[in-house]
Amino acid sequence: MRSASPFPSRGSPRSWRDKSWSRCACLLKRSAISYVRLRTPRGCERQPATPFIVPVSLEGVPAVTSPIVASERHRVTKITITPIAFRDLPLLNTVGVHETFALRAIVEIETDSGFTGLGETYGDAPHIARLRMVARDLVGVDIFNVSEMRRRIILALRADTTVGGHGMSGMVTGSSTPDRVLSPFDVAALDIQGKVVGRPVSDLLGGAVRSEIAFSGYLFYKWAGHPGQDEDSWDAALDTAGIVAQAQRMVADFGFTALKLKGGVFTPEEEIDAVLGLRKAFPNHPLRLDPNGAWTVDTSINVGQVLDGVLEYLEDPTPGITGMAAVRREVPMPLATNMCVVSFDDVAPAVREGAVDVILSDHHFWGGLRRSQALAGITETFGLGLSMHSNSHLGISLAAMVHLAAATPNLDYACDTHWPWKDTDQDVIVPGVLSFHQGAVAVPTTPGLGVELDRDALARLHEQYLKCGLLNRDDTGYMQSLQPEYELLSPRW
Amino acid sequence: MRSASPFPSRGSPRSWRDKSWSRCACLLKRSAISYVRLRTPRGCERQPATPFIVPVSLEGVPAVTSPIVASERHRVTKITITPIAFRDLPLLNTVGVHETFALRAIVEIETDSGFTGLGETYGDAPHIARLRMVARDLVGVDIFNVSEMRRRIILALRADTTVGGHGMSGMVTGSSTPDRVLSPFDVAALDIQGKVVGRPVSDLLGGAVRSEIAFSGYLFYKWAGHPGQDEDSWDAALDTAGIVAQAQRMVADFGFTALKLKGGVFTPEEEIDAVLGLRKAFPNHPLRLDPNGAWTVDTSINVGQVLDGVLEYLEDPTPGITGMAAVRREVPMPLATNMCVVSFDDVAPAVREGAVDVILSDHHFWGGLRRSQALAGITETFGLGLSMHSNSHLGISLAAMVHLAAATPNLDYACDTHWPWKDTDQDVIVPGVLSFHQGAVAVPTTPGLGVELDRDALARLHEQYLKCGLLNRDDTGYMQSLQPEYELLSPRW
Repeated sequence: MRSASPFPSRGSPRSWRDKSWSRCACLLKRSAISYVRLRTPRGCERQPATPFIVPVSLEGVPAVTSPIVASERHRVTKITITPIAFRDLPLLNTVGVHETFALRAIVEIETDSGFTGLGETYGDAPHIARLRMVARDLVGVDIFNVSEMRRRIILALRADTTVGGHGMSGMVTGSSTPDRVLSPFDVAALDIQGKVVGRPVSDLLGGAVRSEIAFSGYLFYKWAGHPGQDEDSWDAALDTAGIVAQAQRMVADFGFTALKLKGGVFTPEEEIDAVLGLRKAFPNHPLRLDPNGAWTVDTSINVGQVLDGVLEYLEDPTPGITGMAAVRREVPMPLATNMCVVSFDDVAPAVREGAVDVILSDHHFWGGLRRSQALAGITETFGLGLSMHSNSHLGISLAAMVHLAAATPNLDYACDTHWPWKDTDQDVIVPGVLSFHQGAVAVPTTPGLGVELDRDALARLHEQYLKCGLLNRDDTGYMQSLQPEYELLSPRW
Repeated sequence: MRSASPFPSRGSPRSWRDKSWSRCACLLKRSAISYVRLRTPRGCERQPATPFIVPVSLEGVPAVTSPIVASERHRVTKITITPIAFRDLPLLNTVGVHETFALRAIVEIETDSGFTGLGETYGDAPHIARLRMVARDLVGVDIFNVSEMRRRIILALRADTTVGGHGMSGMVTGSSTPDRVLSPFDVAALDIQGKVVGRPVSDLLGGAVRSEIAFSGYLFYKWAGHPGQDEDSWDAALDTAGIVAQAQRMVADFGFTALKLKGGVFTPEEEIDAVLGLRKAFPNHPLRLDPNGAWTVDTSINVGQVLDGVLEYLEDPTPGITGMAAVRREVPMPLATNMCVVSFDDVAPAVREGAVDVILSDHHFWGGLRRSQALAGITETFGLGLSMHSNSHLGISLAAMVHLAAATPNLDYACDTHWPWKDTDQDVIVPGVLSFHQGAVAVPTTPGLGVELDRDALARLHEQYLKCGLLNRDDTGYMQSLQPEYELLSPRW
């Protein structure tokens, strides 16, 4: 009757030193290796590697019997993982610049009952290798049993020897591997559950408490175009005037009622000036500044004190829990993070040291939607604010973010999104469902996530993946290929 | 478009000092009044009070429009709250002795789509008054939107002026009022959701990770029968021999593989002797001792040191977070609690002070099944163990406990239950679904909770409620009516 560890097949009494779940926690810790970014020469990366270019299909793999016999079954019969690339703009950050294409992986799950569900995640090669590694073991699982999926993923990842692939260009390096791998399967399972039930995903998460989700306008310093290519539709933004002009267009086009500036690119003085420029141009918009840990503790404290009363929150001014705690003792505004608290293991140390006021959740690295709700329960319980982080993403992820935000009562802030930076022809979903009005997206009310896969678009973006030659996000390598003198420094000022 | 506080209708950007959810948290704190037990004279209590004896029906109350339009609706049309009483045995604890009847309230929800769901909660008069107070406002809510139910409950309880009614005889006094009121509605909503979906409740909580749930055998010092009545089917247990004999019968009848002794009744020395007697008779059973905070810090440390290597955990030896933390620094075994951490507000102080190793969850006071899962996420994140507390309860609660336990990966211990103390003819569900084999209950796999209301039994137990004359649990008052010299002392030794 007993299934394999890490979850016991029954809640048998166990002694203090004999806890299957503790063993599981150890396993999680072992799996959560410290990531070293794959630093292959760029010329090399531009060669497509065969293992990742064919969508992975597991049709025909025999079903595995799950321990629980439910009244009605919807078993996973097929999983398809398709790496795609979509055009990206030269957005600057403290580790370099966005490459010409951003990589994602689209996960499709099919069940024996004929339902299909969608997930979206990072497209870096090591991450895709892990998705493939676990996918075979998910065949046969009942689509309602995400806990069983998680158990199998934890077990399957014991064989994981790859490194890197977090898809965030070195800025988030300590997140839990099993949670990152679980995320797209959790989202796809919830998509199918919603379709089975005839309800939106938000209902499966406890119900929507709001009908539209506010996002912040995400401003970046940028070049006018990628070197050697035509200029893109957004102007260069390399000073305060450029950022303010960018914000004006973004607010005009999308109606955002909050603004966030990606900092860490120019000197703190220049970025303070940009924030003050935004404050002047948008006297009532909450403003955030995120230098991605580019500053020392002293620099962070200086910036925080200068911007007293100007920022809604200051995000990751300096690296690490201890540094953030030191800054937090001296600055007046809330400190937010998606860098020093990126997994459940980071929460207790951050609380103990008093490192942050606001955690930016991200279902892509917090283990999907239900585990992101667990994070929300933690922030509520410990008096922390909750906001939402964004990576370059497509419509499946936006839909998942919107459902999660709808069903999270204690979401305290407008969420981040890179959405404006994506051309409308660069997505894999049928357009029209997700649109911005007054800076907010209406929560889909149709069954599941509420988005539909456009197979022609998927094929086109997969073709783009094959052609672009990128296998891993590498903002630093791209910058260095353009400016050989560029140095990766943390902190930078 | 905006609904009333406490939940905003959209995640609009808000400043640090203007957070609707923080206002809500304040409201929760205001509502979580310190309870003063209603100390009406016993003669008075034995008069049934008219407001509570009629099942509350809200049929015909017009539906309220919920802000989210889902694809398919199952709206609450009728809520029935039926107080019931079931025969209880003279089980001793540090605040007195169980009365002749235990009180519960059965909550039934009906939807416009013809589904019905069941919840079970405390039957004390002030609690029933609160259930009635909020029930009217839940009519019209979509059955999938428990967050909306919670929002309305928080708002409705602003008018709450009653005190007491926690149903736990003074031993748990600081739990959150909205969470306690929400719980039976959350369970009934999940019961209906499961029936709508055709899946067991455990699947709606993320999926079962075990197919049967282990419980501990819950041993009590007791008299042979209630004074003035026939002896019950269990012998007296007033010393080590009596407790060991009780354990032998309970293990023979139910197959329990863990044992818990309710202490705080006799001197610590006598109870240590009982635990050692159990250890001798059951060399391999994990053992627990729970004196309900009857001891000083020094006494607790002495007992803990004497029982080194004998107890799986020591539960609530002394009252309060600070006292528990002082004990924990000096005793070798884990300390568990369902008294000093009984609401989300208690978690941060307990973690900060290092007060406990194990939290006993209880969906009756932690806000239902989903919020109990949030607690599980917290204990996992902060390296705490998780077990489950029990009050005198019937089959609806047992089913809810079993589904919650099934869908909680990090449940580390066999759960508590009072089930053996209830005669088989004293329940409101159709018998046969929930039975013990080797100390465990199989997780129902039929839709919803998997239990069915027996209307004849409900009528019989409601009639019993009317006749017994009890309106509030009062172990101390009952003891004092029998032994006028009995004093309520905390700590007692």
